[in-house]
Amino acid sequence: MRVSGQSYRSVWLEGAVVKAIDQRRLPHEFVITELPDWPATAEAIRNMTIRGAGAIGAAAGFAVAQAALTASASEFFQAMDEAARVIRATRPTARDLFYAVEQVLSTAQRAGEVARARQSAVETAQALADANAAAAEAIGRHGAELLRDGARVLTHCNAGWLAMVDWGSALSPIYHARRQGRQVSVWVPETRPRSQGAKLTAWELAQEGVTHTIVADTAVGSLFQRQQVDLVIVGADRIAANGDVANKIGTYTIATLAHLHRVPMYVAAPLSTIDVDCATGQTIPIEERSVEEVMLVSGAASDGRPATVRIAPEQSPAFNPAFDVTPASLLTGLITEAGIIPADSAAIQTVMA
Amino acid sequence: MRVSGQSYRSVWLEGAVVKAIDQRRLPHEFVITELPDWPATAEAIRNMTIRGAGAIGAAAGFAVAQAALTASASEFFQAMDEAARVIRATRPTARDLFYAVEQVLSTAQRAGEVARARQSAVETAQALADANAAAAEAIGRHGAELLRDGARVLTHCNAGWLAMVDWGSALSPIYHARRQGRQVSVWVPETRPRSQGAKLTAWELAQEGVTHTIVADTAVGSLFQRQQVDLVIVGADRIAANGDVANKIGTYTIATLAHLHRVPMYVAAPLSTIDVDCATGQTIPIEERSVEEVMLVSGAASDGRPATVRIAPEQSPAFNPAFDVTPASLLTGLITEAGIIPADSAAIQTVMA
Repeated sequence: MRVSGQSYRSVWLEGAVVKAIDQRRLPHEFVITELPDWPATAEAIRNMTIRGAGAIGAAAGFAVAQAALTASASEFFQAMDEAARVIRATRPTARDLFYAVEQVLSTAQRAGEVARARQSAVETAQALADANAAAAEAIGRHGAELLRDGARVLTHCNAGWLAMVDWGSALSPIYHARRQGRQVSVWVPETRPRSQGAKLTAWELAQEGVTHTIVADTAVGSLFQRQQVDLVIVGADRIAANGDVANKIGTYTIATLAHLHRVPMYVAAPLSTIDVDCATGQTIPIEERSVEEVMLVSGAASDGRPATVRIAPEQSPAFNPAFDVTPASLLTGLITEAGIIPADSAAIQTVMA
Repeated sequence: MRVSGQSYRSVWLEGAVVKAIDQRRLPHEFVITELPDWPATAEAIRNMTIRGAGAIGAAAGFAVAQAALTASASEFFQAMDEAARVIRATRPTARDLFYAVEQVLSTAQRAGEVARARQSAVETAQALADANAAAAEAIGRHGAELLRDGARVLTHCNAGWLAMVDWGSALSPIYHARRQGRQVSVWVPETRPRSQGAKLTAWELAQEGVTHTIVADTAVGSLFQRQQVDLVIVGADRIAANGDVANKIGTYTIATLAHLHRVPMYVAAPLSTIDVDCATGQTIPIEERSVEEVMLVSGAASDGRPATVRIAPEQSPAFNPAFDVTPASLLTGLITEAGIIPADSAAIQTVMA
């Protein structure tokens, strides 16, 4: 997608180097970070330089490919297994991460011989990134049909192109509708504790010239009450076989409000986000992150430089679950590259067959 | 209540000077601000040095008394009317503000003669502040009966003693239960955009030794889902004749979640917060505040000094309603100084008679 007129993906591989937009520095600075080896890429996933289910998946695939490129021939498969173990441990919830590691690792293993394994790993990682971008594009085409001219969409966190390889999941339908000439406006909840809505979604939408308004997370209920939301579209970190969805903390609250106010709520995600091994959302592991994310807020000081402020008393404890699970019963449907489907076992089984 | 072992009220009158805890500087600094005249006190209400329905009410009453003390005898009642007009315009939603201005102004007017009017104004303002503290104490006694040992209470924003003259509204039952020897723990949502939960409620509870945990506003749904909330108690800025409640933005969302999860939800407020002239919540004016509150976050830098960071892109618009309205149908009851009553017209009519 466009940044100051130029086209970018959120993460890509150049030779043996992973390059990515540093998402911790937006919207204040646009910086491309270079990750020379798989431990650097794994750390970038862990510390959220790269974040968002699809981008994490692509980066994890590239990281395994980096491991293949650098592992010595003598201990090649042990080294790849060890790299895969570390990469898997960076973030527990996003399904795309595990999917990508599995895919790249298994094609390398199937190649048998080291030189071919290296080549297969790189090709598979690249193919996964391309597939993520293509899925996001298709999600946008399908999802755009839901957006009439003038539609007011509520999203949550950032499920835009920064969170995928390109196009986005939840925001892709909006970008498509806009390119088809329809005006769509977007409500952007801040999405504390890391404020990816205010920081990343607002920035993305501004770059693409989409009308949007930032609100505090506390104001979301009021938007529904004032009948200012026509449609909700959010992303997903993992979708269970029954259609339950793990997504950024706060999604469940929005789903509850949408349901009560009879506003349609869609989850946009590629099929790679569906984990058929999770029967329901109850078995999806929910990451707890550092309480410092709640106690501190990072942004730009008045001189534009990065700065962090503490908002809470030092001695107060906090609790910071990064995701919650929205039951399928609260969802209108899933927007996938295979079309818009109901969030239920039968539809998921059919589409995953 | 206690601050480092000493007893304080949130706002008080000493001679012609209003003194108040500067709530914009907590939890990082404990500072008493001195407001020498009514324009200074009005400005302190407007800029939220003094905030919270009860504290605003008391401060507004003191401000009118300050006007009485300084107005020249020749244009006494015109000057008081003008002061009352400015003080009323500081914050549109909190009922206690209008109530206090009305009470102090009318006793002064009834006094007829300037010297007696001055004395009446000061006495009435002091009596209103004392009545607010006494109501808060009674709210705590009644509300404490709802709290069994081990109860996990969710609150919102700050409806503690800082928001009243003393004791608090929503937090008073917790302080009472604790003094009666019961352990109560409190979930404290940050309450963006001004983060009064993380800043003020956490600080208050820490001072009183009450177990508490700060969460991002987005995590509230997850707490209900995990069945970690036994009871919700929040404050109120204005209560309509039918029991609808205007309170800090985000209260409606919490009420929706509590209702869906069958968790009792109470609003704690003195009777002075009830506005029988508002038939329903729909007629309560909702203050919209500066979008800078959404775009910026203030706190303490790593050296402890006050600092502010911008989180969102400069060019992105925002929307910042300060309050929302919770329909009476979502509430279990109102905790008042006259006891716990249903949130409905009949009960309110009886108690206001």
